Amino acid sequence: MVPSLIQRKRDSGSFEAPEWRAIIDGYVAGRIPDYQLSALLMAVVWRGLSTDELAALTDAMIASGDRLRFEGIGRPVLDKHSTGGVGDKVSLLVAPMVASCGVAVPMMSGRGLGHTGGTLDKLESIPGFRTGLSLREVEAQVGRLGCAMIGQTPEIAPADRKLYALRDVTGTVESIPLIAASIMSKKLAEGLDGLVLDVKTGSGAFLPDLERALELARTMIALGETRGCRTVALLTAMDRPLGRACGNVLEVEEALQGLAGEGPEDLMEVTYALGVEMLLLAGVERDAAAARRCLEETVRSGRALETFGKVIEAQGGDPAVIEDPGILPQADAVEVFRAPLGGTVGAVDPRIIGRAIIELGGGRQTMADPVDPTVGFVITVKPGDRVKAGQPLASVFARDDGGIAAGLDALRRAIVIGEAAHPLPLVSHRVTATGVEAF
Amino acid sequence: MVPSLIQRKRDSGSFEAPEWRAIIDGYVAGRIPDYQLSALLMAVVWRGLSTDELAALTDAMIASGDRLRFEGIGRPVLDKHSTGGVGDKVSLLVAPMVASCGVAVPMMSGRGLGHTGGTLDKLESIPGFRTGLSLREVEAQVGRLGCAMIGQTPEIAPADRKLYALRDVTGTVESIPLIAASIMSKKLAEGLDGLVLDVKTGSGAFLPDLERALELARTMIALGETRGCRTVALLTAMDRPLGRACGNVLEVEEALQGLAGEGPEDLMEVTYALGVEMLLLAGVERDAAAARRCLEETVRSGRALETFGKVIEAQGGDPAVIEDPGILPQADAVEVFRAPLGGTVGAVDPRIIGRAIIELGGGRQTMADPVDPTVGFVITVKPGDRVKAGQPLASVFARDDGGIAAGLDALRRAIVIGEAAHPLPLVSHRVTATGVEAF
Repeated sequence: MVPSLIQRKRDSGSFEAPEWRAIIDGYVAGRIPDYQLSALLMAVVWRGLSTDELAALTDAMIASGDRLRFEGIGRPVLDKHSTGGVGDKVSLLVAPMVASCGVAVPMMSGRGLGHTGGTLDKLESIPGFRTGLSLREVEAQVGRLGCAMIGQTPEIAPADRKLYALRDVTGTVESIPLIAASIMSKKLAEGLDGLVLDVKTGSGAFLPDLERALELARTMIALGETRGCRTVALLTAMDRPLGRACGNVLEVEEALQGLAGEGPEDLMEVTYALGVEMLLLAGVERDAAAARRCLEETVRSGRALETFGKVIEAQGGDPAVIEDPGILPQADAVEVFRAPLGGTVGAVDPRIIGRAIIELGGGRQTMADPVDPTVGFVITVKPGDRVKAGQPLASVFARDDGGIAAGLDALRRAIVIGEAAHPLPLVSHRVTATGVEAF
Repeated sequence: MVPSLIQRKRDSGSFEAPEWRAIIDGYVAGRIPDYQLSALLMAVVWRGLSTDELAALTDAMIASGDRLRFEGIGRPVLDKHSTGGVGDKVSLLVAPMVASCGVAVPMMSGRGLGHTGGTLDKLESIPGFRTGLSLREVEAQVGRLGCAMIGQTPEIAPADRKLYALRDVTGTVESIPLIAASIMSKKLAEGLDGLVLDVKTGSGAFLPDLERALELARTMIALGETRGCRTVALLTAMDRPLGRACGNVLEVEEALQGLAGEGPEDLMEVTYALGVEMLLLAGVERDAAAARRCLEETVRSGRALETFGKVIEAQGGDPAVIEDPGILPQADAVEVFRAPLGGTVGAVDPRIIGRAIIELGGGRQTMADPVDPTVGFVITVKPGDRVKAGQPLASVFARDDGGIAAGLDALRRAIVIGEAAHPLPLVSHRVTATGVEAF
């Protein structure tokens, strides 16, 4: 029966919802072996999925586990998802900001893999912070504080976990419907009223190409909307790191600065843009200007920082970090990188930076690798900036002299001086169920 | 490293010969798991293989095992391969006929699977007949008698055996380059000077579509020629069973009749056409007419039947079967099927007949199933024949009354009376390295 299903997909056919359910249930239960599922996945990469099939697959993945339930919480429930980038610490800022505007935010994040960082790794650099809450703990905390910051629990879409591990080793990751099903099965299991997607574009993005990024955004929006979750996407720039800090502790420090009103401009602009969409989808503000004012007020008043502190405390972390980021673990070696020549900064390559963090011990090649939270970079220049020879452009944070040397070498390759800069707009497009508009 | 190879093929790339060698060696040795190979195979179904890749894959499959060596045998070494059909007992005739013309024929065959029969199952219906010779036994017997009739030994292309088992359960059988590599890896390991392919077309063929059948023929010919094995293909009709007998013992009996000069016309025509190509490739006859005369003379003189008897004896079977086919095991129940109405026979559907043989116990659903050699059909009408109501058209050979009922029901569905007949030409095309011609 499974071979004939594989043949049907191979020959451009489609499956009914009960067939997708039988495939996913059979795979999770071990009745369908890896070697049949991997062939089927490659046929899906080839032939794609119809809209109905994608919804059925996603439903089957959700049904493989439990889900969050927020009935009677009295507030709209929203989340944000990013396709991943370098220096992207937006989740750490936007969750407490939006929660401080009266929205429930059960922020579910992943770990870093490849050259992109992961929110979970950043949170766990706060001593004691526990991301593995049970679903009932999440519901209770969101009811109490309006916010929780968690990982994909074992109860949420276990099929996605098993499927992703197989896709990772069988060349079947790069399929827009499979990516959409993976992301949306987890998000829809959160019981959301609305979801804002941050789809990165540019050289450091998972899908660098604008057309593919748009297709992914449209696919996830259509899927969310058919399942009662209002969904909007912003396409944002990942042709350079976001903000200045890249590396887990460094990014938590920068997020704390941002919540205290001292964040770098590009990071804050992307954070506000995504937060505005969350408030509009939640229906708590009437227009973008009012939503922006609400978010700015949570920073100015200190309420967002306070909410973050409560979340840290509730999840076992030391809330003193809010007042004194110096209690976070610190790198043993720091060195300044200076401009080797004068001119215009043409590019800051996010992939080189992301890969260098792995080399320094701050990222992982496989899911089992431990992560050193202290290492990374703070890069204070952006494409288009004019610099003088000898001017400090960045700092390397490393374990030892070898790490410093590797980090300086990476900066030398990543920061291109003397070429014309053509950076992407920070937020280029807004995609909704009705269409795409330039932002 | 394997995931990146899978990704390359998925993205239309190709592999160098050492990469194919590493993939096949790694798979046979168990270093590459089934789930990665099945994803790669589906990517090959999708993207195909270049001519160089197909040759490299085939070489790697051959190199996974041992091969036959006929250096110094003093005769050209030829074989024939059929893509499989219903009632196709040509191998049993053509091997001793061609061997009797001075050509060495190490005929390597397979078992029946699906609706098509297998020469090995037919041979093993001769009491005592042993198809599992060692390679050295095959070489010695071909040197002595000019002919052996064997199965794919464990030493020949073990990679093909493991790959085929995986393809069978992962929807990756229907790929022309993978089919070509599977067939040709075994044939080229026989150390042949030449190979004649019988590529079936029509409703009962593995590839019913003429264009696909031609593509398979061209692919195998190109592959054979690059590896020093002259290769020619005939496209022959499988829109009806070949000959009259369908079922293992029944087909051996018909083959013996054919070797004794009493075979049905269609069976003999296809046998002669393929035998002529073998003699021409072998260079033992100058033209088709001379080759045909040589083959006819092996029948008229009894030399072909005598050679078959020697092969049976050498491989442990009872050579008395040549004189007395009645010593073969016989079905317990036999029943005549009569025309339910008069008119022209429009069709005799080979798939219905082939599947009915499985239902009667004479074929297999999986490779592990035992086969009852006695059951089957003898069908004495062909499409285009005019018949009267009540005229005997066929006989069912079964184990019991239940089998007789099932067999009669299959004949009722398979033999269509009263429609116009449009049978395919018995041999429609001849394909060589230089092109295709109508036969």
